Amino acid sequence: MDLHDLMRRLHVKNSTKIVLLVADGLGGLPLTPDGKTELETAHTPNLDDLAARGVLGLSTPVLPGITPGSGPGHLGLFGYDPLQFQIGRGVLEALGIDFDLGPDDVAIRGNFCTLDAAGNITDRRAGRIPSEVGEKLCAKLNQIKIPGVEVFVRPVKEYRLVIVLRGAGLGGAVEDTDPQKTGVPPLDPVARDAASQKTAEIARAFLKAAREMLKNDPPANFLTMRGIDKKPHIPTFEEIYGLRAAAIAVYPMYRGLARLVSMTVLDAGQTLDDQCSRLEKVWGDFDFFFVHFKYTDSTGEDGNFAAKVAKIEQLDAAIPRITARKSDVLIVTGDHSTPSKLRSHSWHPVPVLLAADTCRSDACTSFGEAQCLAGGLGQFPAKHLMSLAMAHAGRLEKYGA
Amino acid sequence: MDLHDLMRRLHVKNSTKIVLLVADGLGGLPLTPDGKTELETAHTPNLDDLAARGVLGLSTPVLPGITPGSGPGHLGLFGYDPLQFQIGRGVLEALGIDFDLGPDDVAIRGNFCTLDAAGNITDRRAGRIPSEVGEKLCAKLNQIKIPGVEVFVRPVKEYRLVIVLRGAGLGGAVEDTDPQKTGVPPLDPVARDAASQKTAEIARAFLKAAREMLKNDPPANFLTMRGIDKKPHIPTFEEIYGLRAAAIAVYPMYRGLARLVSMTVLDAGQTLDDQCSRLEKVWGDFDFFFVHFKYTDSTGEDGNFAAKVAKIEQLDAAIPRITARKSDVLIVTGDHSTPSKLRSHSWHPVPVLLAADTCRSDACTSFGEAQCLAGGLGQFPAKHLMSLAMAHAGRLEKYGA
Repeated sequence: MDLHDLMRRLHVKNSTKIVLLVADGLGGLPLTPDGKTELETAHTPNLDDLAARGVLGLSTPVLPGITPGSGPGHLGLFGYDPLQFQIGRGVLEALGIDFDLGPDDVAIRGNFCTLDAAGNITDRRAGRIPSEVGEKLCAKLNQIKIPGVEVFVRPVKEYRLVIVLRGAGLGGAVEDTDPQKTGVPPLDPVARDAASQKTAEIARAFLKAAREMLKNDPPANFLTMRGIDKKPHIPTFEEIYGLRAAAIAVYPMYRGLARLVSMTVLDAGQTLDDQCSRLEKVWGDFDFFFVHFKYTDSTGEDGNFAAKVAKIEQLDAAIPRITARKSDVLIVTGDHSTPSKLRSHSWHPVPVLLAADTCRSDACTSFGEAQCLAGGLGQFPAKHLMSLAMAHAGRLEKYGA
Repeated sequence: MDLHDLMRRLHVKNSTKIVLLVADGLGGLPLTPDGKTELETAHTPNLDDLAARGVLGLSTPVLPGITPGSGPGHLGLFGYDPLQFQIGRGVLEALGIDFDLGPDDVAIRGNFCTLDAAGNITDRRAGRIPSEVGEKLCAKLNQIKIPGVEVFVRPVKEYRLVIVLRGAGLGGAVEDTDPQKTGVPPLDPVARDAASQKTAEIARAFLKAAREMLKNDPPANFLTMRGIDKKPHIPTFEEIYGLRAAAIAVYPMYRGLARLVSMTVLDAGQTLDDQCSRLEKVWGDFDFFFVHFKYTDSTGEDGNFAAKVAKIEQLDAAIPRITARKSDVLIVTGDHSTPSKLRSHSWHPVPVLLAADTCRSDACTSFGEAQCLAGGLGQFPAKHLMSLAMAHAGRLEKYGA
């Protein structure tokens, strides 16, 4: 019996509320071996108070040493094994622009590129054309009609775009057309299985039309396709946990990831204050609230230690509005670490804080990586966090008699 | 997706260097409940300095409570699940005498034994004949010719020998001929599957010739066969990790285990100093260095606490020569515990020290079991150590976007 079967079998419904507050890329590193991390440096009286009342730990998003992208990081937090449920690049790109992918849609990441007179690629990113140019070219490509399917072409940023093919009987197993080098022509879309032959044909027809349409638009006179895939078959959050779940996330990527597990995606406004207001307004309508805060990650990726500290303090300042809701379970954690020292996502374990009346409190008195290491939750795979949340919410029956 | 698929997919190549220094049987036990282990007792200023800079933890070689042999212990450290990749006794014995087993070779562990006039075994170890006698008898048996295969007979020690059958179409599933008791005749080699019928026939032919050849050599007037098997299909270290790996090990068994995963096995000389010299000479030629130190295990097996402490101090003294290489990742650990109190391998978790610039340092300031228990790596399956090494060497891409 896998984890989801266990949850399906044991979950019960009641009136408890669970809040999962995700500070993206929360985990960090000290700048010197004996220094403090960003979270340890930040002045966080509200999180420290929660830490003293609750229980801390460290989660491993995927496996030791594995650095997760945002997709696997969030799937883990939502209780899905990130190695079992894999999200293709095209699908993630579509989720990232808030495109509402259907179960039969094939999503493709496109890159505008430059071809020379012989048809060889001279620039795989079309001179990094400005986003406004990319938008205009996408509007043009969006006119392409292919019999039997709907085609959607949407800009992402600069030379990046998303193509979605919607129609019955389209497999998602088609090879990239990006040859990953210059001086050679783009590859032809090739199906990896019989079910994807039709998809490959449609992709070929689309590329033929696009080539004609873009021929006078250098440096963006063609495009390559990557990460061609369909949405994975993911059981819904409600089916597994029996929770009515709401996502209150500002950034499209995280709204998309919540949509992937069939959470209700709400208007979150632009700021943490907006998100708290939304939380307050819909408090009676849902059992579970995923609240996403982006800026701990983006400051980490910028390599700006002080800015990440400031963003953590900003998050801390929002905690009283959340605790005022008196949720039965409040979790504060990250989807992965983004140490400003490394300027990127990393594999380091992620701080977890779980506050509930049913905690066996540990000796921790503040929220930080060193305290989490000594915390009562220990080090555990992130996919088990949801079961802990469910347990503390009184939403799981005993297993066996 | 299993761990190796993940490594294959995520690994990248760069110029970083990883050193895995294995002190065989490193983990220990105190002699009294409130005492210190061998590692905690030893004066290890260099390892303590590394511990302060790096991160500590405890690894579980196979599963909690399972005592590993050298094979499973090392496979775990090399990132192979020791329950998935099993090494037969004959194969391990062949590796242990530095025999270069091919993929189609069948390796057999032999024991010289004594038969009475009726053909019943009276001594399963032939009176523990001296090694010189065993060597002469093996040279004699090595003359046996069997049509269609090559036969190699090599002495191990005293009454122990290795027989290797080399030829096409030989299965490895043949039952032992050692009846595990005296007063009965040796068993006939019986194939467990169709693919091994030919192997069983050859084994029978070999035994027939050996019986004739040894009839005047009591107490070693015959031999039994055990652990008949082929090398498991093990993906190579380079294929999984993209690492050019070198093994610098003095003892044949560990050279053999490194060869099993296709590391390049180098001349290591006889001492730790020789090994360090070799490391220095080949530093530019490889990405990964497995350095093996045997004596922490052998002193543990002797039940000599003080001698094991002295060997750990000898290892510590060699650390500066290794750190002078400025590897990007330096790991010091064992393949299992060998507490001198138990005079044998044990199941106790194994101290791990990982030093790299990307460590999230813990509060540990010396290398010992109690400190490792509070270390940032926590307790983890040994098979994940390679992923951590790869991550700290910057050799793994992000998983998912």
